Amino acid sequence: MDCRSALLEAKGDMEKALQTLKERGWLKAAKKADRVTSQGLIEAYIHSKGRIGAMVELNCETDFVARTDEFKELAHNLAMQIAAQDPQFISKEEVPEGADVEVETTCLLLQPYIKDPNRTVQDVIVETIAKVGENIKVSRFVRFKLGNKVASK
Amino acid sequence: MDCRSALLEAKGDMEKALQTLKERGWLKAAKKADRVTSQGLIEAYIHSKGRIGAMVELNCETDFVARTDEFKELAHNLAMQIAAQDPQFISKEEVPEGADVEVETTCLLLQPYIKDPNRTVQDVIVETIAKVGENIKVSRFVRFKLGNKVASK
Repeated sequence: MDCRSALLEAKGDMEKALQTLKERGWLKAAKKADRVTSQGLIEAYIHSKGRIGAMVELNCETDFVARTDEFKELAHNLAMQIAAQDPQFISKEEVPEGADVEVETTCLLLQPYIKDPNRTVQDVIVETIAKVGENIKVSRFVRFKLGNKVASK
Repeated sequence: MDCRSALLEAKGDMEKALQTLKERGWLKAAKKADRVTSQGLIEAYIHSKGRIGAMVELNCETDFVARTDEFKELAHNLAMQIAAQDPQFISKEEVPEGADVEVETTCLLLQPYIKDPNRTVQDVIVETIAKVGENIKVSRFVRFKLGNKVASK
């Protein structure tokens, strides 16, 4: 392959990669990552007839977006995800250094999304950011399992 | 007053006090206070259109009692109480020594019950213990207020 073809191929790969990022909303999301998220919703989900409960705070930038169906649905699905998948941390950054944990199952944002295991929870949040046009963050969550006060987070 | 009348009056007072305790269910409750409570319910309550959320674990002795309307109602009302009254501790015993807090407003069990401020939350729990015939305990709770991650419990 000559130099020109190699360059064209590299450019093609780059464009493809950018297109993929664009499609997945990651570029839009990255631009909004530093925006202040002080609004949002507290949502809870009770599972297994009261044997498991999860509560999450999901933040966005304005109360207007917090009232949209997309945002409400995301908050609800995240509470369900936490109840079902028992994450211990929000993101990889929260895992203490040297902790012996499997990050993909332990961090909420890296877990396969329960409603579509081909995507991560972060993918789903990014898609909602692209849809509603505001930064979105999970700021905290808690999960109670009946009779399991010490062991559960 | 001679000795006999004094004794009779004292006996009368004692009986009256016992009667009051009995009516309020405290004697029944005291007898059950050491019984193991490993069953129960996790209940959550979302207030103010998603701006406040509370989750509570309420325990009893058997799954049978956990499924009764009385128990479910108590769990629901406690989650509501926590959302509305923002307690920091379950009971007086949890307050760190020397902490500068007003116990009656800070401890869930000592707070006036929101649905009837003439009774404390503990009074209401004791009444349910008397009704369902099992020990009942609040083992933990959590409250989220939107945008208030650090300050709230």
